[in-house]
Amino acid sequence: MEENKQEGIVEEELDQNEAEQEPAEESNGELEQLRQEKEEINNRLLRLQADYDNFRRRTQKEKESDRKYRSQSLVEELVPVLDNFDRALQVEVDGEAAEKFAEGMKMVYQQFKAALDKEGVEEIPAVGEEFDPHLHQAIMQVEDENYDSNIVVEELQKGYRLKDRVIRPSMVKVNQ
Amino acid sequence: MEENKQEGIVEEELDQNEAEQEPAEESNGELEQLRQEKEEINNRLLRLQADYDNFRRRTQKEKESDRKYRSQSLVEELVPVLDNFDRALQVEVDGEAAEKFAEGMKMVYQQFKAALDKEGVEEIPAVGEEFDPHLHQAIMQVEDENYDSNIVVEELQKGYRLKDRVIRPSMVKVNQ
Repeated sequence: MEENKQEGIVEEELDQNEAEQEPAEESNGELEQLRQEKEEINNRLLRLQADYDNFRRRTQKEKESDRKYRSQSLVEELVPVLDNFDRALQVEVDGEAAEKFAEGMKMVYQQFKAALDKEGVEEIPAVGEEFDPHLHQAIMQVEDENYDSNIVVEELQKGYRLKDRVIRPSMVKVNQ
Repeated sequence: MEENKQEGIVEEELDQNEAEQEPAEESNGELEQLRQEKEEINNRLLRLQADYDNFRRRTQKEKESDRKYRSQSLVEELVPVLDNFDRALQVEVDGEAAEKFAEGMKMVYQQFKAALDKEGVEEIPAVGEEFDPHLHQAIMQVEDENYDSNIVVEELQKGYRLKDRVIRPSMVKVNQ
């Protein structure tokens, strides 16, 4: 709105200048030429406007997507850390000091998971779920009467996703 | 923007109508009017081009900054995890199994730090460095003849930065 107002002022000023300086100069050719020139400029204006609008829309979308998945590169680095953390915690320990140590480590692991969760990182559900090739990587097929067909019966490695994007599918055994 | 587009179209239509309906009818007034209109459109075109250029430049800068600090929110969540991990590792353990367990945890910690390092997260150097209020938070002043004045003599809590941005200053004791 402000811009339109300003345009109006500039136009008015130009008006007066031209009226003062130029005498009566008329020709059909000149009129035609002016019309064409005006039309060309107008077309350029319309094209530029459309380009600009498209650029803005695209930029906005990219920005939203960049923001949504901003942690992806760090998360990809952290997934192997989670794997090893998980594995290291499986080791059995004895004795009061060692158990206290292990307890501390389990709390660190929980806190680590919570920090990732807050950023939208989740474990992919596996055991008991229907096999989904987008989420699960089938390493083996088994026959297990306790499960329906095409159901994940065991998870060999955890999978993770960042919001709706799979960072790594889980490795699973699937019932035939 | 939508409004401008519509204006452009309306002008074009008017143009054509005039050409169809009006025979060779030339007047100083009409020429003047066309010149003015052409100049107006041209001015709009120039302004729009300048706007577009500015928008592109600004967008590019924002994008670079967003990319550079993209991990910040996750890093901020992970700093307390590092603190606790660090602290938990200080607990002394005895016995072969417990030592093996602790060894595994130290490797996980190293891997965790390496993943963060790859994303540009670094510990802020403290002990032996000149005190810098942008990097260090002075908790105490001490007198220590082994150090020069204004030098950090002890670190009470690690500080971290993401590239050139301080995520958390380190808490330190400074020599008077």
